[in-house]
Amino acid sequence: MNLKQLVYEVENLSMDNNDLMLMETVFHNANGYIGIRSNYEEGYPEGYDTIRGSYINGFYDIAEMKQAENLHGLIEEKQTMLNVADTQTIYLKINNERFHLFDGTVLFSKRWLDMEQGVTGRQIQWRSPMGNEVEITIKRMTSFHQLSLFTIEYCVKALNFSGTVEFESLHNGEVMNYSNSNDPRIARESKRYLLPEDALIDEDASYLLSHTASSGLSVCTGVKHLLSKQGSIQTKLDGHKAITRIDTTIEEGESITLTKYTVFVDSIRSKNCMEKAKEEMHKATSLPLQSLYDYQHNYLSEYWDNCMLEIEGDSELTAAVNYNMYQLIQSVGKDEYCNIAAKGLSGEGYEGHYFWDTEMYIQPFFNLTEPQITKNLIGFRYKTLDKARENAGLMGHKKGALYPWRTIMGTECSGYFPSGTAGYHINGDIAYSIIAYYLTTKDIDFIVEKGAEILFETARLWVDVGNYYKGRFEIHGVTGPDEYTCLVNNNYYTNVAAQYNLRWAVKIYKLLKELGRLQPLADRIGLTEEEIKEFEKAAESMYLPYDEELKINPQDDSFLHKKVWDLERTPAEKFPLLLHYHPLNLYRYQVCKQADTVLAHFIFEDAQSLETIRNSFDYYEKITTHDSSLSTCIFSIVASKLGLKEKAYHYFGNSAKLDLFNTHKNTKDGIHTANMGGNYMAIVYGFAGLRIKEDGLYFSPSIPEQWKKYCFKINYEDSQIEVEIDHKESKFTLVKGNPKQVKIYGKSYELGDTLTIKAIS
Amino acid sequence: MNLKQLVYEVENLSMDNNDLMLMETVFHNANGYIGIRSNYEEGYPEGYDTIRGSYINGFYDIAEMKQAENLHGLIEEKQTMLNVADTQTIYLKINNERFHLFDGTVLFSKRWLDMEQGVTGRQIQWRSPMGNEVEITIKRMTSFHQLSLFTIEYCVKALNFSGTVEFESLHNGEVMNYSNSNDPRIARESKRYLLPEDALIDEDASYLLSHTASSGLSVCTGVKHLLSKQGSIQTKLDGHKAITRIDTTIEEGESITLTKYTVFVDSIRSKNCMEKAKEEMHKATSLPLQSLYDYQHNYLSEYWDNCMLEIEGDSELTAAVNYNMYQLIQSVGKDEYCNIAAKGLSGEGYEGHYFWDTEMYIQPFFNLTEPQITKNLIGFRYKTLDKARENAGLMGHKKGALYPWRTIMGTECSGYFPSGTAGYHINGDIAYSIIAYYLTTKDIDFIVEKGAEILFETARLWVDVGNYYKGRFEIHGVTGPDEYTCLVNNNYYTNVAAQYNLRWAVKIYKLLKELGRLQPLADRIGLTEEEIKEFEKAAESMYLPYDEELKINPQDDSFLHKKVWDLERTPAEKFPLLLHYHPLNLYRYQVCKQADTVLAHFIFEDAQSLETIRNSFDYYEKITTHDSSLSTCIFSIVASKLGLKEKAYHYFGNSAKLDLFNTHKNTKDGIHTANMGGNYMAIVYGFAGLRIKEDGLYFSPSIPEQWKKYCFKINYEDSQIEVEIDHKESKFTLVKGNPKQVKIYGKSYELGDTLTIKAIS
Repeated sequence: MNLKQLVYEVENLSMDNNDLMLMETVFHNANGYIGIRSNYEEGYPEGYDTIRGSYINGFYDIAEMKQAENLHGLIEEKQTMLNVADTQTIYLKINNERFHLFDGTVLFSKRWLDMEQGVTGRQIQWRSPMGNEVEITIKRMTSFHQLSLFTIEYCVKALNFSGTVEFESLHNGEVMNYSNSNDPRIARESKRYLLPEDALIDEDASYLLSHTASSGLSVCTGVKHLLSKQGSIQTKLDGHKAITRIDTTIEEGESITLTKYTVFVDSIRSKNCMEKAKEEMHKATSLPLQSLYDYQHNYLSEYWDNCMLEIEGDSELTAAVNYNMYQLIQSVGKDEYCNIAAKGLSGEGYEGHYFWDTEMYIQPFFNLTEPQITKNLIGFRYKTLDKARENAGLMGHKKGALYPWRTIMGTECSGYFPSGTAGYHINGDIAYSIIAYYLTTKDIDFIVEKGAEILFETARLWVDVGNYYKGRFEIHGVTGPDEYTCLVNNNYYTNVAAQYNLRWAVKIYKLLKELGRLQPLADRIGLTEEEIKEFEKAAESMYLPYDEELKINPQDDSFLHKKVWDLERTPAEKFPLLLHYHPLNLYRYQVCKQADTVLAHFIFEDAQSLETIRNSFDYYEKITTHDSSLSTCIFSIVASKLGLKEKAYHYFGNSAKLDLFNTHKNTKDGIHTANMGGNYMAIVYGFAGLRIKEDGLYFSPSIPEQWKKYCFKINYEDSQIEVEIDHKESKFTLVKGNPKQVKIYGKSYELGDTLTIKAIS
Repeated sequence: MNLKQLVYEVENLSMDNNDLMLMETVFHNANGYIGIRSNYEEGYPEGYDTIRGSYINGFYDIAEMKQAENLHGLIEEKQTMLNVADTQTIYLKINNERFHLFDGTVLFSKRWLDMEQGVTGRQIQWRSPMGNEVEITIKRMTSFHQLSLFTIEYCVKALNFSGTVEFESLHNGEVMNYSNSNDPRIARESKRYLLPEDALIDEDASYLLSHTASSGLSVCTGVKHLLSKQGSIQTKLDGHKAITRIDTTIEEGESITLTKYTVFVDSIRSKNCMEKAKEEMHKATSLPLQSLYDYQHNYLSEYWDNCMLEIEGDSELTAAVNYNMYQLIQSVGKDEYCNIAAKGLSGEGYEGHYFWDTEMYIQPFFNLTEPQITKNLIGFRYKTLDKARENAGLMGHKKGALYPWRTIMGTECSGYFPSGTAGYHINGDIAYSIIAYYLTTKDIDFIVEKGAEILFETARLWVDVGNYYKGRFEIHGVTGPDEYTCLVNNNYYTNVAAQYNLRWAVKIYKLLKELGRLQPLADRIGLTEEEIKEFEKAAESMYLPYDEELKINPQDDSFLHKKVWDLERTPAEKFPLLLHYHPLNLYRYQVCKQADTVLAHFIFEDAQSLETIRNSFDYYEKITTHDSSLSTCIFSIVASKLGLKEKAYHYFGNSAKLDLFNTHKNTKDGIHTANMGGNYMAIVYGFAGLRIKEDGLYFSPSIPEQWKKYCFKINYEDSQIEVEIDHKESKFTLVKGNPKQVKIYGKSYELGDTLTIKAIS
């Protein structure tokens, strides 16, 4: 394995099925709109398992999800992200011998992901059973310039022979989703969601139009081939498939290239998919391929400039962090019709659903690097606000909005409400993320237009769900971030998030009133001063459980009463616990799947003293399994805050390498986008101690012993700031924008041009 | 409607589909082994809904029950009671006109249930469209003498014509279960569970042998016809059906009778079902029908003598109470292969599953009237103890047994564990019922043989599930009787039941040790003195929540923190709440489906002062919906205990009439056996204040204003005692057995022959 800064390369490819599945994810191409898993064009041998998928962000069908017992209001259907077509398949024959890595002799092979160019590649030198040697180089791109476009550039070089070259290239609309009945994190059954509607050949391109079985959506894929030299290209339709045969000849030493263009168009974004697909195909093929590569490179240059992050002294980690940031820009939706799925567009794990991961683990990264993307993500929540209002009604609330625990188009898709819909904290998370965006950008227009309405409706829900008990405001029957403890009362994280939500609803109300920009919204949603007083009262009376003896915040009212799970005596093969123990068994113990109170101590750090946070960290650390990928990054951040440098580094390392090193053993089903964002946070919020609060920017730089230096850039209001941290000092440079006040190690400074601060050890 | 003591009769039958469905239940025939719904032999018109079922107690197949999300250990298949055959169908033609209540003119009609004779009947005078008048009288019986046997005696009398009579009688093995996808209390989907294995005709009888699709069981039904006069009887097989055609002639004024015998034999109880069915058929038909009727009458005479209960001054209630007691003897299993289902053998509601209903609502009745039946019921729990041990293991317990919340053959069938498997109190309930049986009968042999092992294994589970917190023993993550509040900590009922279970495990341990009868069992299950000490310690440290302010026992740790559900402002059509509100919504409120703490105050009354019980009753009464049929009877008993006579009577009345008056609107799916037992308890334990404790019998007689007098008999140890209570006094008569000490209104008396005690008003 060869890790460079922005190129991840693997040589001498493994033929093992599990490794192949894993690489399908690791090398997938995506641009936030489409995602194509990295399957071999020529396929695997019979009997190999594979997830041969191409996905569109936000494109779904409805899947049945019958409950074992159908209690009132339980969710019985869900949205599921669809595999929309297979346009990856290309078979190659040289002199009538079919190329296959599992036949003949592989003389050399490698795969790479070039994150600067935005392409993946594969190169093989292969000797056929008859002794013909060929070098095959395949480059793939999902274009950031033209989101509908996926290209495969397939180059064949004859090394020791002359003769015929024949391609058979497929465009297959008869596809299904992957299923696995043994893993709760994957769809259990596969059915045919996409039904053929129309198929045609136009100007040498094939177009397949399909519609979903239930959701009323359509998708059109178009495929066209260009050959670098003279040859015959013939396409014929066969059912809902198009098969293109390309014949030509090759001389020893000659290279010939087949370029396969695929465009994806869906009816959520386009009225007439077929016509739009033709336009998109015309647009794609009217430029030289190199221009498309240039656009891709330019897009990424700007991206890397915005999110620059380098670690001197640990190139492996730098590569891992870069890989993570690259996956985030590949995965995140580029319009308000979609969001960022738990697995991005890299696989079917969690069925393409969007979770609170977006707000708490991914938006913090985009706030600092590409705030326009955060705006889209919040825009999605705004677009689905009515569905959240309906959801609140279904759950019996008289007012407010309750965001779904998991969704594609805005309605709840959780089949097991105790660790699904009961996670009401998602409301607080969304509210928090709006404020985080606002504090970073001061984009008050966006708050007026969209943010405030979400804040008010989520605040309303808290007032409805909670109740006063002996003067304190309590919230019963919810589940916090830790899914090993469900349906509890006064989950600390939930309560403190609700308090924050309520307080900011009041603040924004007052701010908009002051600015004279409140009334249209208040009128539209019938918001009264009376309600604002209720918000204030609930926030001020919010019960935040605290244990006098342990001097920590208990995770919930009864958490500390329970037995402590004996993690030391739990065999390694029993992790993650959720795959080996009945939920009711887990619920009865003090054992955490992930950061819960500890997450609250990062996000809402001002709610408790440092001493309480330290005690809590120590307490929860002993009982947390980190079975969720959302956990170690948070422990790293809080360890940094507490000055526990070794721990911070250890947790960070765990988190950074999750997908590249497949540490959770399920990367084949897709990457873990939240962990990727969390990993970034562990550096910037963790080691560098960044906070963005109402009164400005905070830093509290530290650096792991193992590093020499690290640096990164962030956007803040109108400015861009570069931060360099080594063991002696921290250097802050205002790259653009107006001077800023910053607090470093608690002390205020004016950042005009450059500022150098001595390290505190 | 005409209500007599032991005959329930309805004239001028309704043709409404809902009423017909209801009557299928109300007039069903059963004997604890088989149950046949009371469908019209000639059927209903096309498009009518009907549940045309014949059931065998304990006979089941496995049904799929996929979870919406398959978390580890969630139950994904269940047992379901099967509809095994249709042998009810008999079509009649007179002079080639087919008899049907929906054609021609019904001149007179009635149906009845004769609880003294143990038969149901139907009589119709009918004028055909052509003017032929006929009187049809049909009697049905499921024999208590020969449990496999169901008979239909079909009598036709020609009132104004002579001519031909033709019967077409079906024996249909191609049957399915009823399904309704809109009601969580009924199976959602129907599939073909029974598959044909063999069919033959032997000695004019048809036999159909079927096996289940998954559970590996077989069932054979045999049908034979006898005609009271000469005629042709011809049976032919058609697939897995036998069709018998009977032709004869009739003179004006003549009556002819067709007797149809059905025998049911299953492979749980018989090795060779087909041969056994032939034997059973031979046995049935070798006696005159009248002899079978005589046996039936004798059996019931003895039954009514044992469970005699009469209310002077309210014949309607007496009839209702008699109806209930009759249904109990119809429903209860007569061997250890089965138990008593929530709906008996009268319908498919709850799929024939056995619940805690048996132990807490039905056994108290049989303890006092037919203790041999209680012994069978506990025997069933003993037979399935290994399955309960496995269940404990599945739920993560290191020792002990956890009985399933609902089952047929001993494994858990609950698809929604928060109001299923989490109801751990079933363990305490079963333990309680063993002690109740023992205190009533002093049958120590049974305790040695079966009871003690259950007591020890259930006690072991409590030690494993609970934990010490600050010196007190707490039980977390369980659900009490009230299913509107699930997954709580320290449910008062559960904890006090666990305490009772633990204490009695210790007592029985000591008793058996003293008797020298402990060792074989202790050795077999590896029970140590150490464990007994743990039992003692847990029992003595058991935390029983008590609220100092309200001076009540809170239902659980957090119950009193919650909002109170506004029952007054909940529209009538929103009850039962479970059909109209999401469970999570209900969980967040103080609202009870049924008696929970109030049940504890009856069952474990000595755990609290009368004042606490009074306060609790007042408190919970306001927030209980009685949406469960297990509730009002308990409120009646506790009201009696507290001297709230009007309330006691009101709750009792609600309970008594549930099925006869269909007050829960779902009697069509089957009777509510637990309520029937509870209704008996409301009289004997409620009004009469009976208790059986370690130090003997207690009475505390009272009588509702509306009654003149009531009397009943109970068995206690070796004796039978008759109790007569009126407004002036109570009279106790020792019908048989040795003199007994009894405490009446708290004062001790010797009951030798007769004892008369003045009423306390």
